[in-house]
Amino acid sequence: MANSKSEVKTILLAHGSSDIEWSNTFFRLCGPSLDAHQNASLAFMELSEPSLEEEIALAKQQGYQKVLVLPLFLAKGRHLKKDVPGMLERYSEAYTIETELLPPFGEHPKLAEALNNIITETLE
Amino acid sequence: MANSKSEVKTILLAHGSSDIEWSNTFFRLCGPSLDAHQNASLAFMELSEPSLEEEIALAKQQGYQKVLVLPLFLAKGRHLKKDVPGMLERYSEAYTIETELLPPFGEHPKLAEALNNIITETLE
Repeated sequence: MANSKSEVKTILLAHGSSDIEWSNTFFRLCGPSLDAHQNASLAFMELSEPSLEEEIALAKQQGYQKVLVLPLFLAKGRHLKKDVPGMLERYSEAYTIETELLPPFGEHPKLAEALNNIITETLE
Repeated sequence: MANSKSEVKTILLAHGSSDIEWSNTFFRLCGPSLDAHQNASLAFMELSEPSLEEEIALAKQQGYQKVLVLPLFLAKGRHLKKDVPGMLERYSEAYTIETELLPPFGEHPKLAEALNNIITETLE
């Protein structure tokens, strides 16, 4: 079963910050997702732990053949156009594992809906 | 009616980027919210247009007495702890208008739910 779901790991990728409150917020934000999806984990592009490289190395150790990277970014800028693709190319080669970069979750229509609900609630 | 809703403007504040695709994504993300809330607008902290200062100046011209700023940021880092509060203090004084900075929308439980739904859909 070369493409069975259990062989694919999903890494939720956030930016990272030297401020610990930053990563705590992302762990809270991802809480329901990490609880619901055993093959998902959270990693940071820079400054916070665990790093993207650590999580890709771990996926390889755990026997996954492929890593799907879902960027917890609202939009594509330099990081998602250049930095992250470059990192994935290097790590993919270093750890002999397939990687695929998904569009940032900010481009997903469900997020626009959620934002509208949050604003409606905030203004009431 | 000192606190009537119509006297409060809501500014959705995103980071900004020199990449036009960045701001286009934010305008799409905010589309349903801007359609649903006539007193809401989108502004950028830096690099993209319109700027936070422009939107605050416009709110004052339009007769609003107060601006609520909802950061379209996933978590609090230096920008929301130092840069934006400093900007709001300056603009509030310069344009004689009350401003209030809300928590970033990444801290809202509805966003964690939306993320979980997006991941579930992505993995299926």
